[in-house]
Amino acid sequence: MGRIICAGLGPGDPDLMSRRAERAVRGAGHVAYFRKKGRKGQARQIVEGMLSERAIELAMEYPITTEIPFNSPEYNALLSAFYDDWAARLADLARATDIVVLCEGDPFFYGSFMHLYTRLRDRVEIEVIPGITGMTGCWTATDTPITWGDDVLTVLMGTMDEAEMIARMATSDALVVMKTGRNLPKVKRALARAGRLEAAWLVERGTMPGERIVRLAETEATDCPYFAIVLVHGHGRRPEAVPPTIQPRVEAAQ
Amino acid sequence: MGRIICAGLGPGDPDLMSRRAERAVRGAGHVAYFRKKGRKGQARQIVEGMLSERAIELAMEYPITTEIPFNSPEYNALLSAFYDDWAARLADLARATDIVVLCEGDPFFYGSFMHLYTRLRDRVEIEVIPGITGMTGCWTATDTPITWGDDVLTVLMGTMDEAEMIARMATSDALVVMKTGRNLPKVKRALARAGRLEAAWLVERGTMPGERIVRLAETEATDCPYFAIVLVHGHGRRPEAVPPTIQPRVEAAQ
Repeated sequence: MGRIICAGLGPGDPDLMSRRAERAVRGAGHVAYFRKKGRKGQARQIVEGMLSERAIELAMEYPITTEIPFNSPEYNALLSAFYDDWAARLADLARATDIVVLCEGDPFFYGSFMHLYTRLRDRVEIEVIPGITGMTGCWTATDTPITWGDDVLTVLMGTMDEAEMIARMATSDALVVMKTGRNLPKVKRALARAGRLEAAWLVERGTMPGERIVRLAETEATDCPYFAIVLVHGHGRRPEAVPPTIQPRVEAAQ
Repeated sequence: MGRIICAGLGPGDPDLMSRRAERAVRGAGHVAYFRKKGRKGQARQIVEGMLSERAIELAMEYPITTEIPFNSPEYNALLSAFYDDWAARLADLARATDIVVLCEGDPFFYGSFMHLYTRLRDRVEIEVIPGITGMTGCWTATDTPITWGDDVLTVLMGTMDEAEMIARMATSDALVVMKTGRNLPKVKRALARAGRLEAAWLVERGTMPGERIVRLAETEATDCPYFAIVLVHGHGRRPEAVPPTIQPRVEAAQ
């Protein structure tokens, strides 16, 4: 019997994956990863140049979704069948060999891998190698601590209802907002209503080529990057805390 | 001019530090780390066997605090002078050489390094290498995803006011409670009042020798481990989510 090893690859810079994840990736005979059709895939991109020449790649391509609304029952059924299918294929293959599943960030923190994990954990031995989360990469890129002392940190999604979003933004010391994209105008409005917009930063491609760090208030309404996270840094609930002195920067993409 | 490189070492298992942190640690001529007097220090422990024989070690020992109440103005003044002193010594040393400061977890996530960082960043060039947070190590140890889909994650400290704690525990999908220790009875009461106690896990020394994962409800009131985190896993706000099937385990410490 082989095993399934899910390697958390970290926020994007290959140098930020763990020693254990690096060994798993370099030694892999079979490598599986999610990607959108026609794309290379972010996880696959991170390990570019690290795979063995003999490694067999399994690109798990998400079903095409342009004709079905995202979050509709039909879309959920399609996605569920897609995960069922790949879980069966990986379980079958794992009877004979180890398979390394590549995962951006940390596999157990909003990762796609968990949809395979719940389907496989009673059928196959699985090892999960944790990774540095994308949000950690983003706050490191701002050169400013995200949380101090007794700060409360709230991580929320841009998909959230606007009223609930405002309430949470107003009451948390530090904030991370993920799944921004088309939700960015709503996130911006909610932060403004919560009195936090001036302190909010948009970080795109943190630790990766093309990294971009800008004040959210200074972005255009049409500017909705997909791989972006919004951050509000905490101050440790103490008066003597030093405010962030973040330097906006936009690097050229490779 | 030298630089200060703060290496985030991850949750405890040396194999979970990043490739970049490993290079910094192995190549370091000067290594600084915080520790309590009379202890080896958790950060120093993680890099055991990795330092060069020629490395000069700077143990930054916290001032003794048994006679002054923690969080009193006197204690804050003492701690502030301690950070001022070490910032001056490191800035002085960095005129001639690079110094690697060791940091458990991620330096910008509730890390002690930030007290040096705010004092040094306008005087010395500083590089911060992110790490896998302690909480990521803990949820990986439970073999269960912490957040799914549109879950809200709240990270809060056991030092928080009990009423505020209950309100936040009742309204967040996933929870991480740090700084438990003597606050554990309060954390337990608050989770019970918020209706979340049955779903709460205590994880001690996640990814390290002596790892312990137990249902919080089954711990004794006298059981207040210091390096423990309390977790409540999210379910992705969806009815079909699979509940966690966590296996409690207690490993023998080395």
